[in-house]
Amino acid sequence: MSERIPILRIGDVLLVSVQSDLEDQTVLNLQEDLADQIVARSAGGVVIDISALEIVDSFVGRMLATMAAISRMLDARTVVVGMRPAVAITLVELGLSLGGVSTALDLEKGLAKLRRPSDAAPR
Amino acid sequence: MSERIPILRIGDVLLVSVQSDLEDQTVLNLQEDLADQIVARSAGGVVIDISALEIVDSFVGRMLATMAAISRMLDARTVVVGMRPAVAITLVELGLSLGGVSTALDLEKGLAKLRRPSDAAPR
Repeated sequence: MSERIPILRIGDVLLVSVQSDLEDQTVLNLQEDLADQIVARSAGGVVIDISALEIVDSFVGRMLATMAAISRMLDARTVVVGMRPAVAITLVELGLSLGGVSTALDLEKGLAKLRRPSDAAPR
Repeated sequence: MSERIPILRIGDVLLVSVQSDLEDQTVLNLQEDLADQIVARSAGGVVIDISALEIVDSFVGRMLATMAAISRMLDARTVVVGMRPAVAITLVELGLSLGGVSTALDLEKGLAKLRRPSDAAPR
């Protein structure tokens, strides 16, 4: 059985820390768990922490875009935090500009962004 | 003769509950009825409740997108409520991200969203 990535909760915000070297099934499980938790907890926001990612490829980039799209569908705003400079460059080069996804430099700033409605990603 | 889906009214908001297993003609009737009612009632908002949908396919996904587009054309904002986690994932996988459509977890939140102008879907 493949591993499951834990989804933490801070108030009405869900927090997911994405590691590298994820298997396909782990990613699918994560997307499913995230969607379930948003609905079950009536979560208003999702913070995806990618500070553990030193590099990204198109698979991981698409995973981020998909998770953000699922969250938006379920009326939760998404902020990606902890993006490294090299990761930002690679995502842009891959053409995965994560349109509609808000970013913040760290978890604290990300949570602050979710508290200010006008500032976060469009729903 | 194919069945017609009822369109309820709450103040100036119209409420449609979409079931699964809709025939093509029923969907066409619904779109026509919805457009007629928006104009006849001067409706400012439309809530599409899809909590009865346990799964969606591309037909249903396109129907939702079409109904939202028709409502927007007639100057009514649309909120899709009651989306199940699995439905959100499927819509994203189908590439039907319902751009410009606002979502809310339940009917109450959907109605609240329509009351706050800045928060609902762009017209």
